[in-house]
Amino acid sequence: MSIFNLLDILGTAAFAISGALAAMNRRLDLFGIFIIAFVTSIGGGTLRDVLIGNTPVTWMENTIYLYLIGTATALAIIFRNKLNYLKKSLFLFDTIGLGIFTIIGVETGLRVNLSPIVCVALGTTTGCFGGVIRDILCNEIPVIFRKEIYATASIAGGIAYMILYTFSIEENISYIITTGIVIAIRLLVVTYKVSLPIFTLKQKQ
Amino acid sequence: MSIFNLLDILGTAAFAISGALAAMNRRLDLFGIFIIAFVTSIGGGTLRDVLIGNTPVTWMENTIYLYLIGTATALAIIFRNKLNYLKKSLFLFDTIGLGIFTIIGVETGLRVNLSPIVCVALGTTTGCFGGVIRDILCNEIPVIFRKEIYATASIAGGIAYMILYTFSIEENISYIITTGIVIAIRLLVVTYKVSLPIFTLKQKQ
Amino acid sequence: MSIFNLLDILGTAAFAISGALAAMNRRLDLFGIFIIAFVTSIGGGTLRDVLIGNTPVTWMENTIYLYLIGTATALAIIFRNKLNYLKKSLFLFDTIGLGIFTIIGVETGLRVNLSPIVCVALGTTTGCFGGVIRDILCNEIPVIFRKEIYATASIAGGIAYMILYTFSIEENISYIITTGIVIAIRLLVVTYKVSLPIFTLKQKQ
Repeated sequence: MSIFNLLDILGTAAFAISGALAAMNRRLDLFGIFIIAFVTSIGGGTLRDVLIGNTPVTWMENTIYLYLIGTATALAIIFRNKLNYLKKSLFLFDTIGLGIFTIIGVETGLRVNLSPIVCVALGTTTGCFGGVIRDILCNEIPVIFRKEIYATASIAGGIAYMILYTFSIEENISYIITTGIVIAIRLLVVTYKVSLPIFTLKQKQ
Repeated sequence: MSIFNLLDILGTAAFAISGALAAMNRRLDLFGIFIIAFVTSIGGGTLRDVLIGNTPVTWMENTIYLYLIGTATALAIIFRNKLNYLKKSLFLFDTIGLGIFTIIGVETGLRVNLSPIVCVALGTTTGCFGGVIRDILCNEIPVIFRKEIYATASIAGGIAYMILYTFSIEENISYIITTGIVIAIRLLVVTYKVSLPIFTLKQKQ
Repeated sequence: MSIFNLLDILGTAAFAISGALAAMNRRLDLFGIFIIAFVTSIGGGTLRDVLIGNTPVTWMENTIYLYLIGTATALAIIFRNKLNYLKKSLFLFDTIGLGIFTIIGVETGLRVNLSPIVCVALGTTTGCFGGVIRDILCNEIPVIFRKEIYATASIAGGIAYMILYTFSIEENISYIITTGIVIAIRLLVVTYKVSLPIFTLKQKQ
């Protein structure tokens, strides 16, 4: 389990840093930066917990996340102009986070005996909705609805994990394959600039 | 109960289609269209379930809604430019949906023994807040706060249903009367272009 | 406890009035005004209840808040142009509300045995997130992330209350000290126009 925990920590920190950068970009103040970092990091898991009734939500029971996010955010503020050079590492951490959070979401659904499609939906919620809440708080249309194949990577990872689970594949192998799929899709998408189709309505509608 | 279920299906589909059209209008991508359609359709009921602690929320327990919304959204994308001709049918379905969802919300409140005013609030939440969440995700001030007597029709329907319930009127009759009231108010409002008052503040405020 | 209840009523009403004014400022209609007033007043407590699983949420169990908020909103609409002269009283009520709601949030956390840092977070949530939801519904970046030391006063109050609680100080004294600290910080901040730092990113980021 230690690889999983390490990846979880990396993902949480990466999400916090991406939130902190978005908040600084919007010229929010110190409190705003911490809140946006926090919400980006734990928003998806919190929404998942609330929807299935797993309360008090996870970060209230396990305060390690609060300290981890606080530290990551402080570092993001201090090194805000250096983070430019780290963009590729950040992208990697963020994608690892997406994979890990997707797995955690699917597993949560399995634990309360929800149907496979709902488990995948919970995985996507856990992986993507922190970013959605971040964008709403920053008064923007959530980026994952517009620009990038991000949620799709999470959905693909979730489906893969469900299939591996059905065939009783060993957990650690499932983790690595699932996260690998998410990373591979994200890398392909960014490299080849793929995006989902948009459907336009005729003007006089 | 079959009439009720039929109306529920019509309402759910109509809400999904209205969400899908809003998302295409905002030029969201395929994932964005599905999520907005989904949220418009089940957002109100989900908020209601979360507020009263009915978790896992309804659409997780009963996956038929996921498939129904998925199908309705796919059809909305395919026939997006034909839907123009169906605007009146869509208005009708949406209004039926509003009536039905209001009734479901009030009934949920009665089942957990909440007071009448809270039951009506739950009816309005179920009927209207899918659209509110849709508008927030699309980065707009929710339309029901600005332009139309929409929530008011839901409130009137909720109060009517509460009164009929108090007098132990037979359920199917209550359903028809309540939905009829909601439809009648909506039709009157749209025909005569009625709107709720706005109160302006003096400029130097 | 009567002083506490009186302050709670003042705070609830003040939050409702601030919500109603924001809604009128945005030219929302009558329904929009009531909803925004309502959400500003009970949004923070509702979010807190949902996060810890205290459902049905407080205002559903205790309908006095609905009537109180309804009355305060009606008065705000009637006297909307007179409220200008009351700006200082409103500021005072709002700050009292912030203090009281912070205390209620911290106490709720203590009651379900959450750790001190989570209790303070719940206090801040209860005190500040009604305003955050108000701003999101009005399509603005929440003001507490941008302009004012508002949340910080709530955090300071929450920490103070936790310390007083740890030393088993008598409740009424704790209430007064905590609310006093929140009011003092808010007064100092407004008088000297203090604000939290903003961290800018280099443009080419």
